Amino acid sequence: MTDRLDHPLAGRTVLDLTTALSGPYATLLLAGLGARVIKVENPALGGDTSRNNAPYYSATGLQPHRTSDEDMSVSMMLRGRNKESITLNLKAPAGAAVFRELVAEADVLVENFSAGVTRRLGIDFAAVHELNPRLVYASISGFGAQGASGSGKAMDTIIQALSGTMLTAGEPGQPPIRFGLPIADLVAPLYSVIGVLSALLEVDRTGEGQHVDVSMLGALTSLVACEPFDAFEKIGMPLRTGSYVPRLAPFGVFEGSDGWFALCGPTDVFASHLLAAIGRPDLATDPRFAKRDARVRHADELHAMIRDWASDLPIAEAVGRLEAEGVPAAPVRDTGEAVRDPLVLRRGEVEPLQHPVFGVAEELYGSGVPIVLSGSSTSLDRPAPWLGEHTEAVLGELLGYDEARIETLRAAGAL
Amino acid sequence: MTDRLDHPLAGRTVLDLTTALSGPYATLLLAGLGARVIKVENPALGGDTSRNNAPYYSATGLQPHRTSDEDMSVSMMLRGRNKESITLNLKAPAGAAVFRELVAEADVLVENFSAGVTRRLGIDFAAVHELNPRLVYASISGFGAQGASGSGKAMDTIIQALSGTMLTAGEPGQPPIRFGLPIADLVAPLYSVIGVLSALLEVDRTGEGQHVDVSMLGALTSLVACEPFDAFEKIGMPLRTGSYVPRLAPFGVFEGSDGWFALCGPTDVFASHLLAAIGRPDLATDPRFAKRDARVRHADELHAMIRDWASDLPIAEAVGRLEAEGVPAAPVRDTGEAVRDPLVLRRGEVEPLQHPVFGVAEELYGSGVPIVLSGSSTSLDRPAPWLGEHTEAVLGELLGYDEARIETLRAAGAL
Repeated sequence: MTDRLDHPLAGRTVLDLTTALSGPYATLLLAGLGARVIKVENPALGGDTSRNNAPYYSATGLQPHRTSDEDMSVSMMLRGRNKESITLNLKAPAGAAVFRELVAEADVLVENFSAGVTRRLGIDFAAVHELNPRLVYASISGFGAQGASGSGKAMDTIIQALSGTMLTAGEPGQPPIRFGLPIADLVAPLYSVIGVLSALLEVDRTGEGQHVDVSMLGALTSLVACEPFDAFEKIGMPLRTGSYVPRLAPFGVFEGSDGWFALCGPTDVFASHLLAAIGRPDLATDPRFAKRDARVRHADELHAMIRDWASDLPIAEAVGRLEAEGVPAAPVRDTGEAVRDPLVLRRGEVEPLQHPVFGVAEELYGSGVPIVLSGSSTSLDRPAPWLGEHTEAVLGELLGYDEARIETLRAAGAL
Repeated sequence: MTDRLDHPLAGRTVLDLTTALSGPYATLLLAGLGARVIKVENPALGGDTSRNNAPYYSATGLQPHRTSDEDMSVSMMLRGRNKESITLNLKAPAGAAVFRELVAEADVLVENFSAGVTRRLGIDFAAVHELNPRLVYASISGFGAQGASGSGKAMDTIIQALSGTMLTAGEPGQPPIRFGLPIADLVAPLYSVIGVLSALLEVDRTGEGQHVDVSMLGALTSLVACEPFDAFEKIGMPLRTGSYVPRLAPFGVFEGSDGWFALCGPTDVFASHLLAAIGRPDLATDPRFAKRDARVRHADELHAMIRDWASDLPIAEAVGRLEAEGVPAAPVRDTGEAVRDPLVLRRGEVEPLQHPVFGVAEELYGSGVPIVLSGSSTSLDRPAPWLGEHTEAVLGELLGYDEARIETLRAAGAL
């Protein structure tokens, strides 16, 4: 897999010790940017837990349970793309020895074990840095590589709760809002990739690798801290305002006859165009609605008018009329419609998924690399590997092991 | 500002043509990683619109309106850190000439104009690439650098609606959920920075810069496509399930006597520990709750028991009992509490904000760089600049202009 010379990470090898979602998404992006990603899976556990997530894609389509050895979980089809898989038992001494040889050949290592595990396995940054001082070692964890008091199991919902995210939606006094999009799991790997690429620039300059330590809590909380919500609230601009944003009125999500749509008219110009779109151009000079401060005071009235106007309009019609007047508006789409947007598919921001045996999986889509480069390529076009599919190839070609040696390792439970 | 040799982007110069949130967050991260960021502001418009966002930080604290020339918007205090500001009118011929000289000195340019604007200004990628073939040129836009049909104004709420994000929270039949966290505005710059760093690795290798084109719609939709929500729904695992996740029961957000907390018990082991924590260890072997499939069928019953148990417990007590049994649990914190988490502050994932005159602003926090590097530093420790604060310094030191030349430019309306 060294044929991707037009990819920005061509020629870089990543040892991927991750499982579940957060870590594998980091290495998926590195693979999409052209790195050779070698996924190291624990044979004693049946590999990455994502291999056992329902649903599975089978010869007859989606199934809630595995129906044959050729079925693959949709999670793995998605997260395993453009990766090679080897089995390696890091607890077996012979497996640990193989790992040390792989480290010598790698440019990057990514892991998302619970805090403390890499130390117990003897593969924490300090140990690995001695073996290969150029290697960039990235850790993704719930609370940072040093761990934190309390529960060690950082799940996305826990981080959503702690980061304040859940109270940026909904209305005051109402329950917090749990997001189905696992935003904590997905944001941490983005920062991790930024850290890895930054560290690779340093390696190219100084020859020295380093530890890149990203915490899910820190990643999501830093995003929350990008807006001074605190300061807003102190001057009477509450954060939780439900479907509407009175301080930007007219602004919010409205119901049409066949669904919902969003509109944004925070400026005087947008507001006057919106009033034209709903058939009340006369109100554009009304003292209640002409200027922003007045609109904020009369936000309920304004939003009620829009609600009435929209209630018996198909949303395509409502959005069409608003757009014709230049008012930002859009239908609220479900995830199925969103991932099939032709523009998004054309730009490769979402890609159809493939099964290694059954080929392109009808109606299954996965993330692409949402970065369009003019002089380089990115791609996530190779199906996910079976558990250990590349063990012989990697140990043979990269480390020069012969068949007998590989068989011995296998017999010792190292592979 | 070339004294940050221990930062990974030391020695790289970024021309920052961005305004509002999405673009400035990309350049904030580049500044935090050690790049010299020169923020180019349009004097005809009073600079970045963020300078005129309420609230303002004044000598007497937060104010909803500007009370003196020394007041600075909290948005600018946050997004302008570690940047230099110059004024430059790109529409004035003399301003355009200065811009071309800056391009020759820069490594990266970041812009988030509406589609088509850079072409009209004669500063699109093709034009700039001729001036400096090594320059990496990053565009952040709503729908991609080529634009898209429909409204050109991509606001965060519009992208949340189109990407499916709003329908990953809440309950079936209920209104979509608008997030207060401007997730579309914030995710696009993360991919943009990944693209810029990837392109810098290419420049170091090939000498050739390129265009890095990230769309807000593509960025957020690709995140949505990281989970196969479609496939889940097809096998009867609905996406919108409100506060609880029945397919992972016990799992969700519960109310205590003084607030809310989240808990996650998706495995048999976690579930049995949870039953112990709520005082019902006897139920761990009950056929309704022992195994996951059974728990999914009896999720309502299980969640109702937890609700009853929690309703008269302070959340610290409830979370404490769950954690004591090893069950992942956490209080639902508001954003104010979240950004003050001592662990997050210690790791620099959130940083106290400073005003350029009044110093550290009490009780105001902003995002840090949530990447802890063992061998390099990151920092966002310098207060945001006043509009044009560095015009003389940059034109003088970087381009060698003398005072007379700068005065002539100023008189011509170019600065």
